[in-house]
Amino acid sequence: MSAVAPLSSAETPAALIDRLARAGRAAQRRLARLDSRARAEALRAAAAALRADEAAILAANGLDLAQGEARGLSAAMLDRLKLDPARLAGIAAALDQVADLPDPVGQVIDTATRPNGLVLSRVRVPIGLIGIIYESRPNVTADAAALCLRSGNAVLLRGGSEAVHSNRAIHAALARGLASAGVPAEAVQLVPTQDRAAVGAMLAAAGLIDMIVPRGGKSLVARVQADARVPVLAHLDGINHTYIHAAADPAMAVAIARNAKLRRTGICGSMETLLLDAAFPGAPAVVAALLDGGCELRGDARTQALDPRIRPATAEDWDTEYLDAILSVAVVDGLDAALAHIAAHSSAHTDAIVTADDAVAERFLAEVDSAIVMVNASSQFADGGEFGLGAEIGIATGRLHARGPVALEGLTTYKWQVRGTGQIRP
Amino acid sequence: MSAVAPLSSAETPAALIDRLARAGRAAQRRLARLDSRARAEALRAAAAALRADEAAILAANGLDLAQGEARGLSAAMLDRLKLDPARLAGIAAALDQVADLPDPVGQVIDTATRPNGLVLSRVRVPIGLIGIIYESRPNVTADAAALCLRSGNAVLLRGGSEAVHSNRAIHAALARGLASAGVPAEAVQLVPTQDRAAVGAMLAAAGLIDMIVPRGGKSLVARVQADARVPVLAHLDGINHTYIHAAADPAMAVAIARNAKLRRTGICGSMETLLLDAAFPGAPAVVAALLDGGCELRGDARTQALDPRIRPATAEDWDTEYLDAILSVAVVDGLDAALAHIAAHSSAHTDAIVTADDAVAERFLAEVDSAIVMVNASSQFADGGEFGLGAEIGIATGRLHARGPVALEGLTTYKWQVRGTGQIRP
Repeated sequence: MSAVAPLSSAETPAALIDRLARAGRAAQRRLARLDSRARAEALRAAAAALRADEAAILAANGLDLAQGEARGLSAAMLDRLKLDPARLAGIAAALDQVADLPDPVGQVIDTATRPNGLVLSRVRVPIGLIGIIYESRPNVTADAAALCLRSGNAVLLRGGSEAVHSNRAIHAALARGLASAGVPAEAVQLVPTQDRAAVGAMLAAAGLIDMIVPRGGKSLVARVQADARVPVLAHLDGINHTYIHAAADPAMAVAIARNAKLRRTGICGSMETLLLDAAFPGAPAVVAALLDGGCELRGDARTQALDPRIRPATAEDWDTEYLDAILSVAVVDGLDAALAHIAAHSSAHTDAIVTADDAVAERFLAEVDSAIVMVNASSQFADGGEFGLGAEIGIATGRLHARGPVALEGLTTYKWQVRGTGQIRP
Repeated sequence: MSAVAPLSSAETPAALIDRLARAGRAAQRRLARLDSRARAEALRAAAAALRADEAAILAANGLDLAQGEARGLSAAMLDRLKLDPARLAGIAAALDQVADLPDPVGQVIDTATRPNGLVLSRVRVPIGLIGIIYESRPNVTADAAALCLRSGNAVLLRGGSEAVHSNRAIHAALARGLASAGVPAEAVQLVPTQDRAAVGAMLAAAGLIDMIVPRGGKSLVARVQADARVPVLAHLDGINHTYIHAAADPAMAVAIARNAKLRRTGICGSMETLLLDAAFPGAPAVVAALLDGGCELRGDARTQALDPRIRPATAEDWDTEYLDAILSVAVVDGLDAALAHIAAHSSAHTDAIVTADDAVAERFLAEVDSAIVMVNASSQFADGGEFGLGAEIGIATGRLHARGPVALEGLTTYKWQVRGTGQIRP
C-alpha cells in the first residue's frame, strides 16, 4: 500500500532521488487534474487512516523512542519525537483543518483586456514537487504533506533517522487514505533511506525538485541553505528586535516585552534584543519585569546603569539568537539609532516597535526591511496560525517569492492565460 | 560625476563586487526613502542627461564599433551594438515611459483584521540590489537601470566588453541626471572591470545581491543559471509550441502559424514547433503557407506526407530553439497527444492552441504548465509591452516569484505590516 519505492542495492542516492523526483513530478501532473473537493476529501481520508492506524503508529513510535533513549537523545529531543493518542489525534485533526482551508489553485490574481482584445489572466497553479527535509518531529510527515497536497503539489519527504519508524507508519497510513480517494501514490513519497547522501542529492536536484523546505534546527537550515541548488524556503535565525520608543505606553511596554521574550523562549518569533529609547521613562520597569520574570539580561554600558543585575554584553550578543531566557538590551538615542541597530543586526524575521506616536510607528513600518514589522504587538504573534493562514509550511526570511509565514498561497505560483480570437502581432 | 568606484590594483574581483554590493545596498536603503514622484523625476532627469550627452555617447559608441569591427564581430553583433541619434532618442524616451509607469512600491496586496484586533497588511517593497549581466546591447544599461530604480531597487550593471565605452558614457549621463534629482550615486553602479572573474563574483554574492537578471544569448543565460548562488530571473529557451486542434478555424490557423513563426524569427516568443491535429482538415494549407513564406519545415513521417518539401526531423529537432526560419512539425492524434508532446518538449515559455472548441481550449489552458498559455493568438505576443506591463526586465520560465514577462511588480517583494494596540500572545 505504501508509496515508498524499494531501494535497489545497486542504486546510488542520486539515482534514487532522480527516480523518486520524476515519479513525483508525473504524479503531480495527475494530482493537478483532481478538483479541489477531491483533494480535500483525500486529506480527510488520510486523517481517518491515521486514526485507524493509531496502534501501529504508536508501536512504531515506541521503537523510535527506545532507540532514541539507547542513543542518549536529550529529553527535549525525546519529547519532540514522542507521540501519544492525544498528539496523534491532533495530527489527524490538523489534516481535516487543512482540508477545510480555501484552495488557492485556480484563483485568478488579476485579469485585463488589451486594446487588441486579448484577455490576459494570471491564475494560481501549484509549484510542482516540494522537498521537505526535517528532523525528529514525526508530525511534519503529515502536516507538510497535507499543505503540499491541498495546494496541488507533490511532496518528497526526508525525515530524520530518529523518527524513521514513526515516519514510515504515518506515511503508510497517509498513502492508504490518499489512494482510497484517488490521489496517485507517488504524490507523497518518503525517501526510503537514511543515507545522508540522499539529502545532498535532493539539494542538488535543480529542475526536478522545485523548492526545498527545511524543518528543523539551525544546523540543518544552514546546511540546506549553503548547499542547495534548488530554491529554499526557510529562515535561519529569528534575531528579533523590539524597540521601546520614548512615547511608548509604559504598561504596554512591560507587557509586550515580557510576552515577546518569555511566553515561549524557544520559538523563532521570540524577541532576542530589546532596544530602549534613552528618552523612555519606563525603561527601569521594563528591565525589572524581565529580570523578575527569570530572564538574564546582557546590556551595553548605558543599559547596565538601569539595573545592577544586567550583565555586560559582548559584541557577539547583538547577533545571537538565544532561544532561551536570555536577552540582549541596548539603550538607543531615538528612532534613527534604533533603525540603524536593526539594519545592522536583524535577521529580517520579525521586528517590532512600541510607541503611541503614529508618525514614528509609520516610519518604523516603512523603513524596517524585515519579513514582518509590528507596531504595539508581541513578536510572538509571528506565526501562520496567528496570521489567519490556517497553518504554515514555514517562515521565510528570503526576499523572493514569499516572506514571513508561508502557507498554501506560498506553495503556489501562477501562469498567464491568454484568450484570443485570432490576434496576430503586427 | 560617475558612480563607478575606482578599481584599486590590489583589489580582487571578489573584493570589488563585495565593496560595490555593500555600497549598492546602503544606497538602496536611502533610495527606498525617496517617494515615488522623486524616483520618477530622477528618471526624467536621467533621460534629459542622456539627450544632453548625445555627442559624447555616440563618440564612445564609435570607439566600440571600431574595436568590434577590428575584432571581427558579426554584422548582427555590430548592429546590436550600434547607436545613432534615433536609437539614443528611443533609449531616453523609454526612461520617460518607465517614469510614467505606476509605482508598485507601497501597494497594499491585502489586509485583514484578526479577531484579537491585530491589523495585518502585505505591502510591496523593493527586492533590494539587482545584478544585471548583459551582452552587447548598450540600451540595457539604461533600460534595466530605469526599471530597477522605478521599483526602488539599486542595480549593479555588468555589461559586455564589446560595449564598454558606450556603457560608461551612458552610465555617466544617467548618474549625473539621477544625482541632480537626489538619487544616491551608488544606486546605479557599473562594474568597472571587464575581468570575467567579476561575473563569477556577482553570481556567488548570495546575501549581497538579491537577484541576478542575465540579458543576452543562451550561453550567457546557461552559465548564469549553472553557476549562480543568487536567485536568477531568466529563461534559457523559448521552445514554444502551437497546436492546431481539429476544430481550428482554417484561416485563423494559417494566419497565426505564419505570424508565430515568421513575423520575427529571432525573438524568444517565436513558435519553434507546430503540432497539427491529424483530424484538422486545413493542415496542408498551413504547411504550404509556411513553406511559401520561406520557412524550412522538419517533420515526422506523417507530416512529410502532407507536403514533399518537408524534410525529415531528427529526435533533436523537438528540443531545438531555432530562432530562425526553421520549424519542427508533428502530426498528433488529438488533445492528449498534443499535451503529452508539449509536456515532454516545452521549455515552459509560451505554448498556444488554435481551436474553436471552448472546452478543449480550457483544458489546454489548465493542463499546459508553461509560464504563458494562449488560445487563438500568436505566441509572438509573449512580451511585457504587449502584456500591458509597459516594459520588461525579462521573461522568466522558473516557477518561483515571477513567471512570464516581468516588469516592475516582479522587481518587488512584500513585507507584513502588523498594527496592534498592545496585543500579547496568550
